[in-house]
Amino acid sequence: MESPNKFSRKFKDVTLEELRGKVVEFAKVRNWEKYHSPRNLLLALVGEVGELSEIFQWKGEVERGLPNWSNDDKKHLEEEISDVLLYLVQLADVCGLDLGQAALSKIVKNEQKYPLLE
Amino acid sequence: MESPNKFSRKFKDVTLEELRGKVVEFAKVRNWEKYHSPRNLLLALVGEVGELSEIFQWKGEVERGLPNWSNDDKKHLEEEISDVLLYLVQLADVCGLDLGQAALSKIVKNEQKYPLLE
Amino acid sequence: MESPNKFSRKFKDVTLEELRGKVVEFAKVRNWEKYHSPRNLLLALVGEVGELSEIFQWKGEVERGLPNWSNDDKKHLEEEISDVLLYLVQLADVCGLDLGQAALSKIVKNEQKYPLLE
Amino acid sequence: MESPNKFSRKFKDVTLEELRGKVVEFAKVRNWEKYHSPRNLLLALVGEVGELSEIFQWKGEVERGLPNWSNDDKKHLEEEISDVLLYLVQLADVCGLDLGQAALSKIVKNEQKYPLLE
Repeated sequence: MESPNKFSRKFKDVTLEELRGKVVEFAKVRNWEKYHSPRNLLLALVGEVGELSEIFQWKGEVERGLPNWSNDDKKHLEEEISDVLLYLVQLADVCGLDLGQAALSKIVKNEQKYPLLE
Repeated sequence: MESPNKFSRKFKDVTLEELRGKVVEFAKVRNWEKYHSPRNLLLALVGEVGELSEIFQWKGEVERGLPNWSNDDKKHLEEEISDVLLYLVQLADVCGLDLGQAALSKIVKNEQKYPLLE
Repeated sequence: MESPNKFSRKFKDVTLEELRGKVVEFAKVRNWEKYHSPRNLLLALVGEVGELSEIFQWKGEVERGLPNWSNDDKKHLEEEISDVLLYLVQLADVCGLDLGQAALSKIVKNEQKYPLLE
Repeated sequence: MESPNKFSRKFKDVTLEELRGKVVEFAKVRNWEKYHSPRNLLLALVGEVGELSEIFQWKGEVERGLPNWSNDDKKHLEEEISDVLLYLVQLADVCGLDLGQAALSKIVKNEQKYPLLE
């Protein structure tokens, strides 16, 4: 039986390059590139991970799918997860890294580290 | 003039859905999905952000493009940034969120929050 | 010559036990102890580390002593560093750890790990 | 009835000034003060918070007092919590802050923000 995660949902097919293009342009037209040193972006990322954690901090264990969460809570979560992603994309960009290729390579490395037993 | 960030590099065009499919499959075939509650994945994400920070911690200010970094340091950075991304993708998945759509929506919201002055 | 850090300032001599007594009492009289599970407090700590990072995120490299910081910025920093400390004390408390003894032991371990060369 | 947290345990009475004196001396005699800029220490702190989170990441909800944890796990936790505390003390030191006084003031502010209802 197929995983419901893979086939039962229709998620928008967004590429990391599309996001990178948008955040680079966003900063460029606002003349904010001067603030985007690697460590500034890293600390901004840590700040957003903190905001993400705050959403979960008093909830005790949370079930997959977030049953019982309000739409407002889910919307808030979407925004904070997105903020983490967008800073991560920017950090990779200013470091000159190919984030998509790096992620694919890391998955291969993980597969070798944790091989499947037949 | 176009931003050099957008056109001078050729990065691999990886979609968030492709990464999601791979990490979901990776966990499924290892029977690890039972460990992937939202807060477990969130704490794993925080752990990886810590490892990412350790790469930068004693370096003082770091310049864009990481001049003077060794190839080993760059490789290490690619792996840690990727670990953060992969846990973020998994966290969004177990929460039932469309991460790509959420990120695009957040960019639009940011554009409205910080409008360009004519 | 002695380190100016050790002798030129007069800091208030506060014990970790004093802080622990106060935060435990604070939660107890508000009937908040029920929220203070170890992982809830850990995520709250991560949230405060995020707020601490936000103070530093766009500043580039910061000099020791924070020259040029406004009094408001310094006050804000004092509050966020304190929030991290207070959640750390609470986390140690609900885990049943003796934080002061643990910290002294860790310093001894660090001294053994990094011995002084004669 | 008194809180059992306050009276049933006998924890070592360590002051923040004592810890500060020790970590300042530790860095001074190793000639490491040059590495201890505020943002370097902040990122080191984030790194230790990551290691602390890794201890909790696959455990699901954890009960107060850590029943069923091995002595090794508890020892590991003591060390990681201590590392966070020691970097926090060093960060406050290089910023010139009186951490103990700041923490006491923050508790008073919290009491005013969340007043007790009669």
